Amino acid sequence: MQRFEQYLSANLPNVPSFHPLYEEALGAMLLAGGKRFRPQLLLRIVEAYEPMLFDSALPVALALEMFHTYSLIHDDLPAMDDADLRRGHTTLHKRFDEVTAILAGDALNTDAFYLIATAPLREDIRIKLVEILAKNGGGSGMVLGQAIDCHFENKPLTLEQIKMLHTNKTAKLIAASLMMGAVIAALPRESQQALYDFGLDLGLLFQIQDDIIDETQSEEEAGKTTGNDGEKNSFVTLLGLEGSMEEAESLAAALEARFATFEPKLQEALEPLIGTYLYRHREGA
Amino acid sequence: MQRFEQYLSANLPNVPSFHPLYEEALGAMLLAGGKRFRPQLLLRIVEAYEPMLFDSALPVALALEMFHTYSLIHDDLPAMDDADLRRGHTTLHKRFDEVTAILAGDALNTDAFYLIATAPLREDIRIKLVEILAKNGGGSGMVLGQAIDCHFENKPLTLEQIKMLHTNKTAKLIAASLMMGAVIAALPRESQQALYDFGLDLGLLFQIQDDIIDETQSEEEAGKTTGNDGEKNSFVTLLGLEGSMEEAESLAAALEARFATFEPKLQEALEPLIGTYLYRHREGA
Repeated sequence: MQRFEQYLSANLPNVPSFHPLYEEALGAMLLAGGKRFRPQLLLRIVEAYEPMLFDSALPVALALEMFHTYSLIHDDLPAMDDADLRRGHTTLHKRFDEVTAILAGDALNTDAFYLIATAPLREDIRIKLVEILAKNGGGSGMVLGQAIDCHFENKPLTLEQIKMLHTNKTAKLIAASLMMGAVIAALPRESQQALYDFGLDLGLLFQIQDDIIDETQSEEEAGKTTGNDGEKNSFVTLLGLEGSMEEAESLAAALEARFATFEPKLQEALEPLIGTYLYRHREGA
Repeated sequence: MQRFEQYLSANLPNVPSFHPLYEEALGAMLLAGGKRFRPQLLLRIVEAYEPMLFDSALPVALALEMFHTYSLIHDDLPAMDDADLRRGHTTLHKRFDEVTAILAGDALNTDAFYLIATAPLREDIRIKLVEILAKNGGGSGMVLGQAIDCHFENKPLTLEQIKMLHTNKTAKLIAASLMMGAVIAALPRESQQALYDFGLDLGLLFQIQDDIIDETQSEEEAGKTTGNDGEKNSFVTLLGLEGSMEEAESLAAALEARFATFEPKLQEALEPLIGTYLYRHREGA
């Protein structure tokens, strides 16, 4: 993903230098690293099916990373998780201040749509991409999940409700990333939908594994604040560590079976990125 | 604008009832009133030139109101203006809590783009509308203005800098509303640009008059918290009340002259909405 990192460094939102603190803040979180998981999902599909469109898809991949980054910045705010550490760095509101963190998030949210709207892709593709990101990232998607997460702190949810929470908070943006790649690659509608559905369960699997990491790793190992998740509804608080690992293994096995039905070209494209998650259960209990 | 209000009530973002508090919060600010100035600018242009597209433009008009509402909710947050009152009602973070206010704003920001992306308009028009809103509302527009506003509290700016601040914070979204109306109405590019440029100065005029109101009206009369603007950079703090009124009058006179060069049909459409602002200077000092 070197080309993505190069593109990212060269194309950080250009904010006039009138207020350098803000410009720095906006770039800080984007350049702080992370797995670039969502951009990679999208770019790998495009590269496999429409390699000529790879460069045109870069702004869309950056839009996904910006959108994801905005959600992390706002999740870390004092009113929400009040986290000090993210991606191995001091969180934005600690390093600068709360205003800067709120506004940097707001800007990344909106600017992501500007990047998609102006990407060198066909108009019908661009408008479809805007629709998918907005539908999965807004009040009926990611933000709804975050709202549920915050408001049901200390109020135990059922397994079904926890799945609904994380489907919205985490899985929908991962599913959207796969679907957006499929739209750019002009895959048939059924394939777009199959990738979206697969992404929803993949997102849930990630969340369970993330909950397990939060329980078993130190902040230093995880590179983010993990402590205050104890009061939050997580798979581990409901199912315990053992139960969560079993849930993860059964989900991974089901996902592996579905993955095996994908076209070989698609499997080859995604396997280097998600294979370790799907196959981990083989070495498990 | 009865049709807009009807459409608004009927089409509030549908959030699953899993978390009723959030749903209520999201609707509260939108239904709390306000002048609906941005939707009206857009709809009046569409009605004058392409009345058959009026209904198709309603979701875009709602998107503008949602985007504006998101900016008010975040501006009122404790970390920013820490306001208790907005549109004559208790602000969202006071009525509910800070998390709800941050997330309601985030949802409105993103959902506005969903409404535009799915409006029953041509794809090339929709993608242009997304581009205009995102460009003027994000980190190079409205959010930049808000960042400057917050970070230069208690640090006096020059008149040029204050104009730059409010051009971004307020005027660009007003200019975008006019331009988006012109795009839906399929006006020539030069007319789109002329309306945008006119909107930038119109937005500045509003801001000056808003500063004067903040200085001369009570909170009850204004329907919003006005007190803490004393530390902020405003036209009144720099130019004084008298000087601000003179600045407003000279800007209004210049705008009136430009308005007179618009097509009669366009003048007729916009005059009921903005005439009182343009002509007020005639009764002035």
